[in-house]
Amino acid sequence: MAEKIKGIFTPHMVPLDQNGQINEAELRRYIDWLIECGVHGLYPNGSTGEFIRFTPEERRRIVQIVCQQTAGRVPVLAGAAEANVEETIKACQTYHEYGARAVAIVSPFYYKLSPESVYAYFRQIALNSPIDITLYNIPMFASPIDVPTIKRLAEHERIVGIKDSSGDVAFMMRMISAVRPNRPDFAFLTGWEAVLVPMLMVGADGGTNATSGIVPELTRKLYDLAQVSQLNEAMNLQYRLLELFDTMLYSADFPEGFRAAVELRGFNMGMSRQPLSEAQQIDRTALQKVLQCILADFGYVDAPLEGCPPRSGDIEQDRVTQITQGVVQKLREKGMI
Amino acid sequence: MAEKIKGIFTPHMVPLDQNGQINEAELRRYIDWLIECGVHGLYPNGSTGEFIRFTPEERRRIVQIVCQQTAGRVPVLAGAAEANVEETIKACQTYHEYGARAVAIVSPFYYKLSPESVYAYFRQIALNSPIDITLYNIPMFASPIDVPTIKRLAEHERIVGIKDSSGDVAFMMRMISAVRPNRPDFAFLTGWEAVLVPMLMVGADGGTNATSGIVPELTRKLYDLAQVSQLNEAMNLQYRLLELFDTMLYSADFPEGFRAAVELRGFNMGMSRQPLSEAQQIDRTALQKVLQCILADFGYVDAPLEGCPPRSGDIEQDRVTQITQGVVQKLREKGMI
Amino acid sequence: MAEKIKGIFTPHMVPLDQNGQINEAELRRYIDWLIECGVHGLYPNGSTGEFIRFTPEERRRIVQIVCQQTAGRVPVLAGAAEANVEETIKACQTYHEYGARAVAIVSPFYYKLSPESVYAYFRQIALNSPIDITLYNIPMFASPIDVPTIKRLAEHERIVGIKDSSGDVAFMMRMISAVRPNRPDFAFLTGWEAVLVPMLMVGADGGTNATSGIVPELTRKLYDLAQVSQLNEAMNLQYRLLELFDTMLYSADFPEGFRAAVELRGFNMGMSRQPLSEAQQIDRTALQKVLQCILADFGYVDAPLEGCPPRSGDIEQDRVTQITQGVVQKLREKGMI
Amino acid sequence: MAEKIKGIFTPHMVPLDQNGQINEAELRRYIDWLIECGVHGLYPNGSTGEFIRFTPEERRRIVQIVCQQTAGRVPVLAGAAEANVEETIKACQTYHEYGARAVAIVSPFYYKLSPESVYAYFRQIALNSPIDITLYNIPMFASPIDVPTIKRLAEHERIVGIKDSSGDVAFMMRMISAVRPNRPDFAFLTGWEAVLVPMLMVGADGGTNATSGIVPELTRKLYDLAQVSQLNEAMNLQYRLLELFDTMLYSADFPEGFRAAVELRGFNMGMSRQPLSEAQQIDRTALQKVLQCILADFGYVDAPLEGCPPRSGDIEQDRVTQITQGVVQKLREKGMI
Repeated sequence: MAEKIKGIFTPHMVPLDQNGQINEAELRRYIDWLIECGVHGLYPNGSTGEFIRFTPEERRRIVQIVCQQTAGRVPVLAGAAEANVEETIKACQTYHEYGARAVAIVSPFYYKLSPESVYAYFRQIALNSPIDITLYNIPMFASPIDVPTIKRLAEHERIVGIKDSSGDVAFMMRMISAVRPNRPDFAFLTGWEAVLVPMLMVGADGGTNATSGIVPELTRKLYDLAQVSQLNEAMNLQYRLLELFDTMLYSADFPEGFRAAVELRGFNMGMSRQPLSEAQQIDRTALQKVLQCILADFGYVDAPLEGCPPRSGDIEQDRVTQITQGVVQKLREKGMI
Repeated sequence: MAEKIKGIFTPHMVPLDQNGQINEAELRRYIDWLIECGVHGLYPNGSTGEFIRFTPEERRRIVQIVCQQTAGRVPVLAGAAEANVEETIKACQTYHEYGARAVAIVSPFYYKLSPESVYAYFRQIALNSPIDITLYNIPMFASPIDVPTIKRLAEHERIVGIKDSSGDVAFMMRMISAVRPNRPDFAFLTGWEAVLVPMLMVGADGGTNATSGIVPELTRKLYDLAQVSQLNEAMNLQYRLLELFDTMLYSADFPEGFRAAVELRGFNMGMSRQPLSEAQQIDRTALQKVLQCILADFGYVDAPLEGCPPRSGDIEQDRVTQITQGVVQKLREKGMI
Repeated sequence: MAEKIKGIFTPHMVPLDQNGQINEAELRRYIDWLIECGVHGLYPNGSTGEFIRFTPEERRRIVQIVCQQTAGRVPVLAGAAEANVEETIKACQTYHEYGARAVAIVSPFYYKLSPESVYAYFRQIALNSPIDITLYNIPMFASPIDVPTIKRLAEHERIVGIKDSSGDVAFMMRMISAVRPNRPDFAFLTGWEAVLVPMLMVGADGGTNATSGIVPELTRKLYDLAQVSQLNEAMNLQYRLLELFDTMLYSADFPEGFRAAVELRGFNMGMSRQPLSEAQQIDRTALQKVLQCILADFGYVDAPLEGCPPRSGDIEQDRVTQITQGVVQKLREKGMI
Repeated sequence: MAEKIKGIFTPHMVPLDQNGQINEAELRRYIDWLIECGVHGLYPNGSTGEFIRFTPEERRRIVQIVCQQTAGRVPVLAGAAEANVEETIKACQTYHEYGARAVAIVSPFYYKLSPESVYAYFRQIALNSPIDITLYNIPMFASPIDVPTIKRLAEHERIVGIKDSSGDVAFMMRMISAVRPNRPDFAFLTGWEAVLVPMLMVGADGGTNATSGIVPELTRKLYDLAQVSQLNEAMNLQYRLLELFDTMLYSADFPEGFRAAVELRGFNMGMSRQPLSEAQQIDRTALQKVLQCILADFGYVDAPLEGCPPRSGDIEQDRVTQITQGVVQKLREKGMI
């Protein structure tokens, strides 16, 4: 039996070039950096990775590049959801050939399906996949996978874990209660690093966390501290991670805040495939300043030249302060004030 | 300027063969029947048409078949949403070449985008599409398009209408108030035939209604009666249409109830690409009996051999009655009671 | 059997004096005016009437004043929900003695109860009330009353109608389908005048509409036009009513926008029992200007001295324009610009 | 300055007699038992205590009894929300005289108020209350109190804490981040014992937990273990507490499951003021058997005579099993099988 999935997997973004196409060289450089910074695995084609904004061919190419570049250094958990069950099974076969450790399959989205349909969907895939499967529950975007359904699906050995992005600690406990007694090998990963340490403490095996694509050193440290039960130090870092997470998540439409942050770590991400209006581009510039200040506090990047205003803890207010400061600066440059 | 879009457009389903592939012959036969029954236009790749369960190539093939088969008899409104703005624009070009009257583009889904992002998305497409565009607002499945955003987008001549599936009559009025004074050519179509007559009465130009794929004669009649202000007769039919609509919508995960109903009109729809569990297959059989009884009341099909129990108006209860009757019948056949 | 409830009932607000107590004289003057303007009935202790912000004793006093003042000129539908079933039944008895035509009882709120509990609650009251009961469904504030529950409750003769504030025209049709065949005397009233004409058109018997407390002449006219099937003229007014309704509803926390509007008709409403922050007071002043402009268009009040800027149809924008205009005016008064 | 509020406070239910009135003797006996079992404080008139189903006079009487009976042994946190700001302030004065440590005031409910209105409401009370105030955030029932609003309100010294029943661990962290630096004395209490240990771990000061009215020994032990950082043992108990909590919460309309459980600890709670239908009474009997089995596992009560079927972890299924077993037993008693 394959080893249990655990640790921090990075649902990484995909750098794009000037034409909006996959920037392969930058993606390979980014993957190398993430591995060097200590992530336990990679997770291409996740929600942060904007799987839905790529074509089926591009999704395959992304997994191929990631599998090649990791070259076995860390396991790959490949997002494999396609248009329907048959297409998804084909992707499972391909990713198996590419050498992925397992696939992650998001619950059916667009239509809001009943638990019975969610069950039928995953069951069909489990019966036909040559590669291990992790379920992906993200109720804010896709049909929820409830605990009784998870329990039924865990009867299939091919299904080896679940990534849950609900952020609900009690839900994590309910899943663990329902499944772990019969499936000690079943992995529980949280997608909500706002509460990564509490999730690990109640028994989660790790996380697939977008912030690990920005501060992989930090999420690794959090995980390691939790493993040795140094919870006080872990919680101190958790509080600081929360500030970064909230700022990226709530200051722009997901996952644009994360893209803005990855750039600060030195990667050229290109423009999103979701266009930004002019107002949004101004907001993004202000947001990036706030993010730079937060990352500078960790020592990961330099502070902006114009310095950092004190943070209020209120994201909206901080951004407004930053925008105002930016406007004042421009007016000064133009000699208008 | 092209003619304003109006009337009842059918967001038709796509028949599949035994291998789950597009059944082209049956699709062509179905299109012919719909046109003969009086629909004003066809709408391939809508939500009822399960656009998301087909590959990009299949979606193109579906529009191609529909455009060929209609051969100009009625206009085609082609669902053109693809993975991102660039892919969507390419689909617009292709459907323009196929001869579609316009495309319909659903608001971005999966991620829940802000109004500003929704605006930026449609604006980019409007600036690059060679074919007229209708917006598609379906807040239960995709990012909502709010009234101020619709108003801003209506400044683009390329955008010629909106299909709204919210079912909210006041929202229809708000859209009309905001846009019609400056854009009398802008079409307002409702996707919620539960209230088709009230929508027409407040000024909607027509509908894209899934039930028109099952009872095209009836939806056409409703529309015609509303056009000549015979509202009493229209409302009588509207009440009966509501019963059919509710039964199809709430008795199974969308759009399986509609598939079950199309079959009763004599078309071989094949198995859905969303698998059904065993329990769901039993439910579907019972549902189809209820639907047969409703359609028999209209005179469109024969009643089931075993007859129709009186309907209670409570869908759930009716289905349970039907299931019980079915079980009793089987026990009788086996001589067990 | 008592006459069926129909027409427009006003869920009126309660004027308060400088000490925040019921201003009885003003309330009596307001009731007289409403009756003279043609409302079909009065509905004290509704949601617009802020029943929840009065004590049980005050609620009784309000109904007493209204029953006395109407003196049989129009029927009174008295909101009778109290802390629990026993207290509610006592209020029913009292309001029966006061001469109310019927009581209206909102579904249990705060806790979100299941349909079975909603049924048990109303059933218990129906078995013990000496006065006719109308159910009050307002799912945005209280436990929803679903169609099967309404059908079960309609088996009690004591329950003679329902007020529904969902604003969902299809829901109105579902209720009518389920109940009217067996209970032709059962009254269906809409609380959502945004779609009053469509509701009347599908068969509703009338409405309990907050706007009838501000423009009773208009809602009466709408009703009368609908009765004689002059739907075009009715719809023209409906569109104008919608603008007023939306402005009152979405520009301030309910029902403060309605209070601001009643004042414009010449009644001294006093300060709300829900305090306003300073920012809210400034907003309220701007809102009242917008409302004055809308009411002036109807000819019900004079336009503001400083005139009315053109309305954009975007409430938020209109208010900002008005605020800006107000600020500019003040600066001018102070000679600052 | 008064001591910071911390530990486990019990939002206790109120026993009723055969006439549905407050059973004072039983309430006093219950209070004594809770204190003896180690709760740190009492919290009359909470949501579990069904404050909304009592009259204003009864709410006062309940607090009076509790203050008298505790006689200073533990602090009392008295639920003081009344119909409006003035009435609430009067209740604050009364509870101050009764000797309560502080009051707890739920955010305005029924109407869904904006953050600005929520702020204005609590600010007005803070300026006029003679007794310390804790905010009560329960977004599933009342207008939410967001983090910026909490931060603004924490500028009032009179406001000394917040009870949050959202169950969102990240939200708890956000509140603590925003407020604790300036107000180290401000108390953060969780109302969601499903995650009591994780909440304590991220820095919460305690909880107001309905389960502490059923298993006060257990919640006290959880708290004590968390205080001395014995998190493994604490988490083992937390998992078992979750099963009990979920069963009480999701098997009946809140808080009927908790009433059923208190009875098993030997207190005569009487019938709820919210009537139960016949179907609900049957369900309640089955639920009580399941609860008895869970409590028997802890050793707090004896197992049912007919024994306990193995629990599946699926509440719904367990109850059905129990119902079936009960029916079979009755049939046996009657000699029918």
